[in-house]
Amino acid sequence: MMLDKIAMILGDECLLDANATWLVGVSGGPDSVCLLHLLHSQGYHLIAAHVNHGLRPEAEQEARSVGYFVHGLGIDFISSCVDVRSFADEQSLSIEEAARRLRYQYLFEQAEKTSASAVLIAHNADDQVETILMHLLRGSGLTGLRGMEYRTLPNPWSDRIPLVRPLISTWREEILAYLAEHDIGYISDQSNFDTTFFRNRLRHELFPILEEYNPRIRENLLRMSQINKEDYAVIQQLVADAWQANFVKRGQGYIAFRLQGFQQLLPSIQRYLLRKAIGYHLPSLRDVDYDSIERGVNFLGEGKPGGQTDLIAGLRLLKEGDIFWLVTWQANLPGVDFPGVSAGDEIELAVPGVISLNDGWVLRAKAETDPGESIPNSYANIDPFQAWLDLDQVQLPLLIRNRKVGERFQPLGMHGHSLKVSDLMVNLKLPKRARSTWPLICSGREIVWIPGYRQSHLGRIKPSSLRIIHLALSKKSAA
Amino acid sequence: MMLDKIAMILGDECLLDANATWLVGVSGGPDSVCLLHLLHSQGYHLIAAHVNHGLRPEAEQEARSVGYFVHGLGIDFISSCVDVRSFADEQSLSIEEAARRLRYQYLFEQAEKTSASAVLIAHNADDQVETILMHLLRGSGLTGLRGMEYRTLPNPWSDRIPLVRPLISTWREEILAYLAEHDIGYISDQSNFDTTFFRNRLRHELFPILEEYNPRIRENLLRMSQINKEDYAVIQQLVADAWQANFVKRGQGYIAFRLQGFQQLLPSIQRYLLRKAIGYHLPSLRDVDYDSIERGVNFLGEGKPGGQTDLIAGLRLLKEGDIFWLVTWQANLPGVDFPGVSAGDEIELAVPGVISLNDGWVLRAKAETDPGESIPNSYANIDPFQAWLDLDQVQLPLLIRNRKVGERFQPLGMHGHSLKVSDLMVNLKLPKRARSTWPLICSGREIVWIPGYRQSHLGRIKPSSLRIIHLALSKKSAA
Repeated sequence: MMLDKIAMILGDECLLDANATWLVGVSGGPDSVCLLHLLHSQGYHLIAAHVNHGLRPEAEQEARSVGYFVHGLGIDFISSCVDVRSFADEQSLSIEEAARRLRYQYLFEQAEKTSASAVLIAHNADDQVETILMHLLRGSGLTGLRGMEYRTLPNPWSDRIPLVRPLISTWREEILAYLAEHDIGYISDQSNFDTTFFRNRLRHELFPILEEYNPRIRENLLRMSQINKEDYAVIQQLVADAWQANFVKRGQGYIAFRLQGFQQLLPSIQRYLLRKAIGYHLPSLRDVDYDSIERGVNFLGEGKPGGQTDLIAGLRLLKEGDIFWLVTWQANLPGVDFPGVSAGDEIELAVPGVISLNDGWVLRAKAETDPGESIPNSYANIDPFQAWLDLDQVQLPLLIRNRKVGERFQPLGMHGHSLKVSDLMVNLKLPKRARSTWPLICSGREIVWIPGYRQSHLGRIKPSSLRIIHLALSKKSAA
Repeated sequence: MMLDKIAMILGDECLLDANATWLVGVSGGPDSVCLLHLLHSQGYHLIAAHVNHGLRPEAEQEARSVGYFVHGLGIDFISSCVDVRSFADEQSLSIEEAARRLRYQYLFEQAEKTSASAVLIAHNADDQVETILMHLLRGSGLTGLRGMEYRTLPNPWSDRIPLVRPLISTWREEILAYLAEHDIGYISDQSNFDTTFFRNRLRHELFPILEEYNPRIRENLLRMSQINKEDYAVIQQLVADAWQANFVKRGQGYIAFRLQGFQQLLPSIQRYLLRKAIGYHLPSLRDVDYDSIERGVNFLGEGKPGGQTDLIAGLRLLKEGDIFWLVTWQANLPGVDFPGVSAGDEIELAVPGVISLNDGWVLRAKAETDPGESIPNSYANIDPFQAWLDLDQVQLPLLIRNRKVGERFQPLGMHGHSLKVSDLMVNLKLPKRARSTWPLICSGREIVWIPGYRQSHLGRIKPSSLRIIHLALSKKSAA
């Protein structure tokens, strides 16, 4: 029964070539062990890949036992140790996100190297409905409510090798029954990276409550995701058509579309096209917020010609005649003016307060009145032109000035490490002509934020933070 | 602030002509009182209409005080008393649904009579997110997740006069603030028809819990509905195109489309088109379930030519060459075979059990293993080809036979009334040639179900029912 269903899914939904080699990510947990065993029993040609995140003392032992299981089935086994903590520090990522990125990066590198035609991972239906519920709580539309796809191509790691999830409609219960039936052991990992605290609360607290309102809530959400996937596919087809019809050119750091054509699209299609264009620059940027998209669409819809606006994560929109550009900060196109502070200036920034910099750039500070969901975890903030600081950890007024010779800075997440600001600016590819006048936000003598790039360890939001400052650097749209 | 927002909504979203007359439904509760006052203050030309459902002792007093308030504003006032209980009995409806239908029927009749250009009702943003959450618990896709629309046309009551909800994005809190500011009184109705028990549980129990997971859940669901509306509009445009491209003909009881053209549509569009075709026959049928649509789409997608299948609520699909038909039971087209029992036969139906009738018709009985959500309230059952009975209230085995001379039957909901079966068959437009052999399901000597038409009062599901029989009459697809 389960085998028949999966066989159909592999062909009809995952669109996999049964004669090719598939690379299967195997953590050793029940889902991936089941997936590997099940595929192997059907005679597919597999490579099993394991990533040791090196975060728990038992990780090495587990990697060995996964290898033992895989070899026992006569399947090729590859594995790697990655340094999640260093990568998290370097990239200012949470441990979970750093582990996720390193894991997928390894799986796709290996798929490329071994000429595997797909990367298979073992998310199940419970993961799926939990993911959907998370999107729902955030108010996501179809994009989130369709849940994870059986097959994702292109994906953030490849334009050629699909990311495939054959078990996305198979319940954990069915997987455990399969393992019991075939007497297969697995690793029970209590600190599963994918099973974050919030996800655990949904699984163990919220779903049981929702089941009191509708005992079939899980099945219903799963079915909903399947309907939504098909609706999403219809719309994405229209988005692809609109992209093709309005695309002008693209290159390192820029992509351009016809403005009038864009303005004539339905609002829904405009939003999806803009999201897709953001994905061109930042394929791994997840959960672009609604307000940013809305701001972008409104800017592009305004009658007046020309002008530019910040979008998100350092991306900007520029209107120029009948074309609009979505550019990265580094694109360094003519018409992009940098914010700057004159040498020697030290400008006071009160909270709340607004400071005008050159060329229409504005720095705003305000106290957050509604702590809670609205303030991103400092690590999770994806927009480098905004920052949140703990008001009680900084000295007021904040000061705005440019860099000093030899000055150092401790980026958020780099525990105990500090870097020379000048080196950091080079590493981060801040355009050369902007470096010496770039505004730095300081608490006393210490830099707390380099707008557009990095927040400091000092002043970061902690669970104990009570009073919060929100900072935003933006440029007014101007003709 | 609120006035500006509503003014924009009236024009941009509700598409109302500011110089026309609008008919406003006024219950006397805070929402409708606010809507009326607010529109009046802006100088629009209004007629206020009140429906007295006659269900509570204070209803008459309330109707008078609504009239007093309306006259005080200098607005034309019309009102009507309706007999909800009798209508609920006659139509086998719940009291809430009967009240709703009579109310809308009156509002649209009066709009027609007074040449009003629209019917305005006062659902607010809290109603909206509660509605969305209900759809969500049922696993509805975009159709439900978009929530109620600002403007609905066509609607079940008119093809010409829109049903308009200007307050759908205004929170109850804002409405109460408006009323307080203008010192306006209103009726606090503890037994509001729209506020059913389940809705109350969502409002007072589930939302506070969801807010612990995301304090902005209400705002997020409201925003989600706005995104979903735009996506829905995109898809409905494609559905309208597909309808136009594939429509063949229609008339009383039938509508026909090109089969090949239908088969070439994307699955999502096929489903919406079928739903829309069902709406052609049964505009007030709400919440057509996913499985019925799926069954219909699968039947139409099958390679083999010809055949027919039951869809829902007495509708059937027929394939004939390159055309498919969606027909009502009464259409009486050639090719529709009636189920029948020979005179004098008395067939025993065990539980579980399956009885074959003529021409491929099959009657199935089974015990429900999962009581709870899966068993519709007998009143809410919208598919007359299925019935649910309380196993402990009927005599087993059930008997299948045709009608006896002068035999009487007490339809569900008609407290104490009974009708002659022969009269009922005439009233319900059961095709004449099918009447004498139509199968009746009996408990002992009493009819408990006339398949395709009515369930009896006897054997109905009550909150206390423990063991349940599910009956279904269907015809196998046949070439």
